[in-house]
Amino acid sequence: MNYFSSEFRLGILGGGQLGKMLITETRKFDIQTLVLDSSAEAPAQFGANKFYQGSLMDYETVYQFGKMCHILTIEIENVNLDALDKLEEEGHVIYPSPKTLRLIQNKGRQKDFYVENNIPTSKHQRFVDLNDLKKSLEKDELEFPFVWKSAQFGYDGNGVKICRSTIDLMHLPEVECIAEEMVPFKNELSVIVARNAKGEVKTYPVVEMEFHPEANQVEYVICPARIEEKVAQLAIDTALQVSKAFNHVGLLAVEMFQTENEEILVNEVAPRPHNSGHHTIEASYTSQFENHLRSVLNLPLGNTDSKVAGIMVNLVGEEGFSGPVVYENIEKIMAIDGVTPHIYGKKETRPFRKMGHVTIVNEDMTEARKVAEEVKNSIRVISVK
Amino acid sequence: MNYFSSEFRLGILGGGQLGKMLITETRKFDIQTLVLDSSAEAPAQFGANKFYQGSLMDYETVYQFGKMCHILTIEIENVNLDALDKLEEEGHVIYPSPKTLRLIQNKGRQKDFYVENNIPTSKHQRFVDLNDLKKSLEKDELEFPFVWKSAQFGYDGNGVKICRSTIDLMHLPEVECIAEEMVPFKNELSVIVARNAKGEVKTYPVVEMEFHPEANQVEYVICPARIEEKVAQLAIDTALQVSKAFNHVGLLAVEMFQTENEEILVNEVAPRPHNSGHHTIEASYTSQFENHLRSVLNLPLGNTDSKVAGIMVNLVGEEGFSGPVVYENIEKIMAIDGVTPHIYGKKETRPFRKMGHVTIVNEDMTEARKVAEEVKNSIRVISVK
Repeated sequence: MNYFSSEFRLGILGGGQLGKMLITETRKFDIQTLVLDSSAEAPAQFGANKFYQGSLMDYETVYQFGKMCHILTIEIENVNLDALDKLEEEGHVIYPSPKTLRLIQNKGRQKDFYVENNIPTSKHQRFVDLNDLKKSLEKDELEFPFVWKSAQFGYDGNGVKICRSTIDLMHLPEVECIAEEMVPFKNELSVIVARNAKGEVKTYPVVEMEFHPEANQVEYVICPARIEEKVAQLAIDTALQVSKAFNHVGLLAVEMFQTENEEILVNEVAPRPHNSGHHTIEASYTSQFENHLRSVLNLPLGNTDSKVAGIMVNLVGEEGFSGPVVYENIEKIMAIDGVTPHIYGKKETRPFRKMGHVTIVNEDMTEARKVAEEVKNSIRVISVK
Repeated sequence: MNYFSSEFRLGILGGGQLGKMLITETRKFDIQTLVLDSSAEAPAQFGANKFYQGSLMDYETVYQFGKMCHILTIEIENVNLDALDKLEEEGHVIYPSPKTLRLIQNKGRQKDFYVENNIPTSKHQRFVDLNDLKKSLEKDELEFPFVWKSAQFGYDGNGVKICRSTIDLMHLPEVECIAEEMVPFKNELSVIVARNAKGEVKTYPVVEMEFHPEANQVEYVICPARIEEKVAQLAIDTALQVSKAFNHVGLLAVEMFQTENEEILVNEVAPRPHNSGHHTIEASYTSQFENHLRSVLNLPLGNTDSKVAGIMVNLVGEEGFSGPVVYENIEKIMAIDGVTPHIYGKKETRPFRKMGHVTIVNEDMTEARKVAEEVKNSIRVISVK
């Protein structure tokens, strides 16, 4: 099919920062894009050929949007799947498939899928609601400590809680949930797999999430991960196993734990460009966004090797600030070699809102890591008085 | 000034491919942009916050457009300068300055400027029209061979002719022109200088234009140029001298000849992102477009070093094809590691029309050069029957 400067139309469900960075790559190839998002201020509205405002969870909205597109993809998993099923039935091409999205949307089903496919993952139990979980505790079928996760809409660290005693259950919502065994881990790793419909597969190098020693928050995404070669290979093999099990087309970000026993356990997946791949824009021969595009259009995949070491720092709203955003000290960090801020284009900051990220690249990882700390300690996302 | 996700507006005169690639960088920083171009199909219309269709040569159009912007820049030199003068008088910030644009718009004035500023350049004579030139020939004040150049609108290889005898003068237009001494040269080189209003200056590595041995057409732009270190240093020093003479803010692409006597002679300049810097998107720590933006906004300049070797191949319309464009074998070249096509988004191809470019990057220059040849021999810009 001729995608370039043609009448071909790619539809993107969701117009957040991931959609925005994906749109950038479509422009380079002059591929026509249509974007659907519920917000009139969606970051991806600029650069799209056509932007539509409407709910991603509304059957009719998603269905009518999909009808206008030759190929449909997503930048967020929470979309109306019945509409996608109907579109697929009618012959529309959708990557990732509605079937995969259905599996992933529910963390219980996702964990069951790993077990069924012999993919290493921590032990889990599913509960229809919190009351169901409490009954299991009473019957000693479940024991503290465990990780409670909301089954739905639980991505990005929301809907997750470590439960050590009954007190920790007090403010949990009455929703479908799972309890996962707590596994002591040394590292949180991620591998992004790209696969097109022809079955061509490439993996990006393993990245490592470095946590703040006290706050237990991810501070840096580091590529390549500072781990042993055999651990990296095991992580890549596991990610490929997951991609194959899903028969996935597009990008699949596979988040994993490296346990203290040197096991690799799959935590969860995202069937799209991912926060753990933002550094690829500057560090890799082909960015994750370009490879997502190449995958869903069934084009040859681009080289996933790195040109240089890359570190990513998220820019989130500071606590105590809400309102029109100001990026304090942004000029200071821009003066450092190899530092690129990405401002997503959200006008208002709120505490912990993802407002952008900064990529640090360098030939030398130690130097990159030093600069990343300088960046982290300099820039602040605040608001005007 | 706060440029990021704010009410600040950058105006760009011209919406061609250079504008389009510049717009891409503004999105990354979420800087509001307004674009003016005469064509409703201008490549830069997508990605701009607001696109206006109107003539760049019309006083009122340019003036009213400029009034809406806090800072104004260009992606093409042929714009109405009286409007820019008026805007500058009223306190608007314009980079490059109208004064520089006036000097550059006329090749005669540009050459005079080099002479006045002791910048090495080939000898030239100015003529009010072709008749004036012919009189000089008759009076033996001018001798064959020489290079005829139209004084105005002569960029990109149009309006240039090598004249060896009276026959070569036959189809030349009756316009203001210059005659330049023919200098035998070994290499055509280019250096892009970035300079912000604070006076911070950075130069990109010297690039080399490699010509087709028979057709005498530029085939490849190669970075870094395969020349001796002392020649490269002389080219960089000369480019810096030119930038300083213009007191230039923004990017200045300085095209030079390396003569057979190892002299460096300035050919001409472009006060904006340039064809000889397209490889910087993939090869450099900071692309030329990002550094143009940083320059005109008076932000710290980004690192101009290369991560890897880069070669650029222009994609121009094949002879014998006019109409809706097809990029034959584009998927074949996309399958090669380190190859990135940039499709500008022009719907119709015409013979020799610039439709896009392809960048080839590799750690190894010899390998990059081999791949560049493969790309050049594969992709063809044609039209559907």
